[in-house]
Amino acid sequence: MEEILDRAAEAAREWGTTRPDERAAALDAVAEALDRETGDLVALAEWECRLPGEGLRAEVARTTFQLRSFAAHLRSGAVNGVVVDREDPAWPAGPRPDLRRMLVPLGPVAVFGSTSYPFAFSVAGSDTASALAAGCPVVVKASHSYPDLADRTAEIVEAVLPKGVFALVHGQRRARQLVLDPRIKAVAFIGSSRVGRELHHLAATRPEPIPFYGGFGSVNPVFVTAQAARERGREIARGFAQALAQQSGQLCTKPGLLVVPEAIADDVAAEVRALRAEPLFNKLVAKRFETGVEALTEFLDVLVEGGSVAGGHAPTLLRTTATDVLNGHDEVLSECFGPVSVVVTYRDSHELLELAATLPGQLTATVHGEDDDVLPELVSELTGRAGRIVWNQWPNDIATTPAMHHGGPWPATTSPFHTSVGVRAVERFQRPVVFQGFPSRFLPEVLADER
Amino acid sequence: MEEILDRAAEAAREWGTTRPDERAAALDAVAEALDRETGDLVALAEWECRLPGEGLRAEVARTTFQLRSFAAHLRSGAVNGVVVDREDPAWPAGPRPDLRRMLVPLGPVAVFGSTSYPFAFSVAGSDTASALAAGCPVVVKASHSYPDLADRTAEIVEAVLPKGVFALVHGQRRARQLVLDPRIKAVAFIGSSRVGRELHHLAATRPEPIPFYGGFGSVNPVFVTAQAARERGREIARGFAQALAQQSGQLCTKPGLLVVPEAIADDVAAEVRALRAEPLFNKLVAKRFETGVEALTEFLDVLVEGGSVAGGHAPTLLRTTATDVLNGHDEVLSECFGPVSVVVTYRDSHELLELAATLPGQLTATVHGEDDDVLPELVSELTGRAGRIVWNQWPNDIATTPAMHHGGPWPATTSPFHTSVGVRAVERFQRPVVFQGFPSRFLPEVLADER
Repeated sequence: MEEILDRAAEAAREWGTTRPDERAAALDAVAEALDRETGDLVALAEWECRLPGEGLRAEVARTTFQLRSFAAHLRSGAVNGVVVDREDPAWPAGPRPDLRRMLVPLGPVAVFGSTSYPFAFSVAGSDTASALAAGCPVVVKASHSYPDLADRTAEIVEAVLPKGVFALVHGQRRARQLVLDPRIKAVAFIGSSRVGRELHHLAATRPEPIPFYGGFGSVNPVFVTAQAARERGREIARGFAQALAQQSGQLCTKPGLLVVPEAIADDVAAEVRALRAEPLFNKLVAKRFETGVEALTEFLDVLVEGGSVAGGHAPTLLRTTATDVLNGHDEVLSECFGPVSVVVTYRDSHELLELAATLPGQLTATVHGEDDDVLPELVSELTGRAGRIVWNQWPNDIATTPAMHHGGPWPATTSPFHTSVGVRAVERFQRPVVFQGFPSRFLPEVLADER
Repeated sequence: MEEILDRAAEAAREWGTTRPDERAAALDAVAEALDRETGDLVALAEWECRLPGEGLRAEVARTTFQLRSFAAHLRSGAVNGVVVDREDPAWPAGPRPDLRRMLVPLGPVAVFGSTSYPFAFSVAGSDTASALAAGCPVVVKASHSYPDLADRTAEIVEAVLPKGVFALVHGQRRARQLVLDPRIKAVAFIGSSRVGRELHHLAATRPEPIPFYGGFGSVNPVFVTAQAARERGREIARGFAQALAQQSGQLCTKPGLLVVPEAIADDVAAEVRALRAEPLFNKLVAKRFETGVEALTEFLDVLVEGGSVAGGHAPTLLRTTATDVLNGHDEVLSECFGPVSVVVTYRDSHELLELAATLPGQLTATVHGEDDDVLPELVSELTGRAGRIVWNQWPNDIATTPAMHHGGPWPATTSPFHTSVGVRAVERFQRPVVFQGFPSRFLPEVLADER
């Protein structure tokens, strides 16, 4: 580990001052190498992550798309954040010197691979790609859920990049070491809030505090209005069941709270009851899931008893009322990772709005509505509490596009300003520097006058 | 205080959803009101802050310029951060929904007024203006150095803004209360690193951590190359002495470290010896300054003994060698607020670069050079350590322009990403939200399709 961190610190200067198009070429090369090995990687992931091959192939494609998006972003020049103010003796706030601003990389970044996405948010995923695009060397801490896949992916990435720019480490002990090491200048973390909060605290209180980008997941509430429930209750119930079942509920964007009028609760239960049992990622995930459900059933009604059948887990559906939650039984507002969700029934729009106003920060909040009077106020309330608001769709999929914001207020993430998906993810690893009065010959190429 | 915070929390929704041009009109109105009262305000500040009237008038002009800059920024639309991705079933990473991103305000902000700038970074200064522009109500904690001026300024601001959007409080006890209050969603702080770090720690470890933007100052090193020293040593010495004397060294951008070849140290001393004694802001500042100088003189040579004369303090110049600093005597790398600076003599370019590489994060770093071979490496080293790099000028003045970055890596500030000067200061108080698949009728006006 010492050697890995030394090499990363050493590589930081050179990699950080490469031209953006050089970094773009490197990211394209990583994408190409992964494309070439897709067959191998998917086979390994099917075995190690217990996920279906079709979804994994799509995830590899997403991963290489992400890498190429950052490459295109680098080539567009937008990544440099250049702002130039020429000298102006007549500037109204007093004579202004020549000022040229650009973004520079923070230095070596520690990336914690996610369990849910063995490719797209892992070794060569969005965090790694964005840190590399920013000009930061990356040290990935592999998820314990797929050590072999992590090794194989790292081998492919490392072979393509300059020495020291990328490395992989394993083991829980390394997590704390990485976050505390003075050579590490930022951390990107996807995972459990228990581990994440501890690491966040370390990052914020070490002698030189560093940015810690933690995505801890959330309950991703779905609000169904009275009119939507009346007009298409069955359809919504079916859509919800599918969203809950996607990847056996093992997604940070799983809808974990369905807020509905009493009338459609049975429809929802019927749809969830019809879902099949599917295997979870591994025994540790299954164990945590079972413990989480057990804790919830202590004070919630069980609408659909999922439970484990022949190595798989069928989705569980629990139930409470908005009145109960508002009276302080707000344990349902914490995430339980895996195939479980809670139906919360409400009496009227007043209660619906009150419930929305008790939500802690969320990655997403979803509304299924029609033309109900409550909507403007509901949407406004949710805007204050979530990073993404979804209308008459489901929150699970996170499109990789420039407008995407995958993030949200505390406790969903540790930084409300930043997204971990889309090209803006690179901003997490760059800071501005402004050069005052400099002749072009000493300026970085992107700031110099054309020669 | 309870009532003030309640009113701020209440005002947050309405102020946060005003149209940008409405907030622009309000900021313009504040600027106009301050302009009208300039005479009164300056007279009060001359008496309470012991600063010359001419400089104070310029500072009021800067303050109203800042307010109007944020108003113009609001009218330009840039402040909304809108990115729209239309629905695209053929998007290469999979069908893409309609996604529309914008920035929303964080909520009520606590602003701590600076001692050095009774107008430009105080009650109606850059932090207040940028938070208001973002759509956040503001509660200002007045600097203890000018309670009456703070009250008078607050009166003017409060009269112009909607109820609850702005308030002023006094007293050190309120500082902790503000930072810990759940209704406060961000803090902007300029002041001593002692108080600032304590408050930063509170903000980072409270149940809901909030962004804390602290500017703690730095030594703002100035590097003079061998060739520059030979060709214009006297001129540089004169410029340095003036920069040190500006506002009696009571600026976060004061050059506190002058790194020079031995040959011009005497020229520098001669120029500093010729400076007049000037009063400091108040007794507390004077006391801290004297204690700081005393600590430094324990292990540094005194080149110019300043000391206090008839209510004023003449600048003090201390001296050490790069060799000593590199051998661990690095106390000179911490700021001492007031009219004192340290000359560090170096032997050769190697030592110059080594010294640059030991610097902690800085607000500014300055180079006086010609065509020396050491320059590319020196500039590259400083780029990794400062928020602003100045060439053959002095760092004191902070131009209010779009390209300005007033910030820097830890420990100079608590967030390397953000500037407290220039229109980008507003970004500190906004977070992104993306709306997925929404019909225009439920979208905020800036995201809706044209009707």
